[in-house]
Amino acid sequence: QVTGPSGEGTDAVVILEKTPFQEEKVSDLLKKHTKLELQMRNDIYSTYHLYPPPELSEIKTTVVYPATEKHLQKYLHQEVHLIRETWEDYKNITLPFIQSQSFSIQWVYNILEKKAEADRIIHENPDPCNGFVLVPDLKWNQNQLEDLYLIALVHCREVKSLRDLTAEHLPLLRNILEEGKEAVAKRFGVPGSQLRIYLHYQPSYYHLHVHFTALSYDAPGSSVERAHLLADVIDNLALDSTYYQKRALTFALRADELLLKKFQEAGRV
Amino acid sequence: QVTGPSGEGTDAVVILEKTPFQEEKVSDLLKKHTKLELQMRNDIYSTYHLYPPPELSEIKTTVVYPATEKHLQKYLHQEVHLIRETWEDYKNITLPFIQSQSFSIQWVYNILEKKAEADRIIHENPDPCNGFVLVPDLKWNQNQLEDLYLIALVHCREVKSLRDLTAEHLPLLRNILEEGKEAVAKRFGVPGSQLRIYLHYQPSYYHLHVHFTALSYDAPGSSVERAHLLADVIDNLALDSTYYQKRALTFALRADELLLKKFQEAGRV
Repeated sequence: QVTGPSGEGTDAVVILEKTPFQEEKVSDLLKKHTKLELQMRNDIYSTYHLYPPPELSEIKTTVVYPATEKHLQKYLHQEVHLIRETWEDYKNITLPFIQSQSFSIQWVYNILEKKAEADRIIHENPDPCNGFVLVPDLKWNQNQLEDLYLIALVHCREVKSLRDLTAEHLPLLRNILEEGKEAVAKRFGVPGSQLRIYLHYQPSYYHLHVHFTALSYDAPGSSVERAHLLADVIDNLALDSTYYQKRALTFALRADELLLKKFQEAGRV
Repeated sequence: QVTGPSGEGTDAVVILEKTPFQEEKVSDLLKKHTKLELQMRNDIYSTYHLYPPPELSEIKTTVVYPATEKHLQKYLHQEVHLIRETWEDYKNITLPFIQSQSFSIQWVYNILEKKAEADRIIHENPDPCNGFVLVPDLKWNQNQLEDLYLIALVHCREVKSLRDLTAEHLPLLRNILEEGKEAVAKRFGVPGSQLRIYLHYQPSYYHLHVHFTALSYDAPGSSVERAHLLADVIDNLALDSTYYQKRALTFALRADELLLKKFQEAGRV
């Protein structure tokens, strides 16, 4: 809270960000530091506290003032909790929750039916069961390959997520993996060995889709508590058709998400 | 390069890391800053350069000295390739490679034998088969919980990695999961539902260890192509004792890594 000229309290948002090192200033940092304090030594490894002079440790500061309630909400820290969802949890808590939500996926159908983004399609396999459409994700501006991000949307509309997959979907999944890699190599020159190809669980929408991101890109949602490599999914299903109707799956939920509340009500958190 | 006492050049690796803000020091930062420079103003938004006093802008510094060629390679920027390693690949390429390397893990034994870092131990289960030691990772300065990072090192010395695990290791793995969560909750007040607990494959050293990181922390090596959730590993082994001697595993190798060359020579990349 900032006290304004007329004495009333008015909220401000102040964002402090440490910025990346500038390569050309690193040698200054090592020469001019005011203080270097040994913390720990073990064999050839040691750690120190280094206290740099102010001009070498700029903090980027952004101020929103006066800030509205909406600005405050946007920047408030949300606690995140891991859920370990068993198959029973899925049937009793998650599935009824998904079915009760009426989050529109019309935008997905628009793409599949060529009513939107038709000119953006990178590849299509038109088979209604085992086919899919590959399009650039909206998060990618296509200006550089460093943050390459594409999405494969399946044509069939019955598969909500990883939890619905069985061995019967292997032809579809293998098509996505093989044709997707080929299409990305052909169009963008990025080989399959430099692509991270994965599903999310929980996904952000319940129409099966697969993410293709550049391996060098630390894409949001590519961490182990959310991403499942398509190659692993295929191997798990080949090993056991009901793998994803048996195995507990881990995912994170933010404190304000309704699904977390459902798990809490069920005494599962 | 560091010039040693006898004048010869010896390489050192110096890692500089800006650490997260400590919440209780933010008000000091806003009060005591030596300089605040306006950069841009537009309506209710403005940005500044803030130059904090040295004591409020610690840089975590890690030194490896003397550093071997392998240490240098580890930190140089490189193109990265995904490998899909079958069990046959592991037996024919990876395992012989690991055995041919003699990367010292003396520092691990030093910790297990209390010859180093003994005062840093957070928890120990002393059982030679099913026991482990939990210590803060060197990457964590312990000043703030946002980037909490601990490592569980197992007492038994025969388990190199995920590939060696079978159902016989379930008691060990369950001890790490349960006792580890408990110890972190007790010491740091962070509940198990806010911890990402996982193994790396490939690991950076071949003595079984488990990573504990804050869920809110985008820890390096927590992405799906390297991390394996301990809870998933336990469930997979409970389902099938030889799961990790069957399943292909994906990991990334940098262009300069010898193991990549071995896969290339075998025609597997």
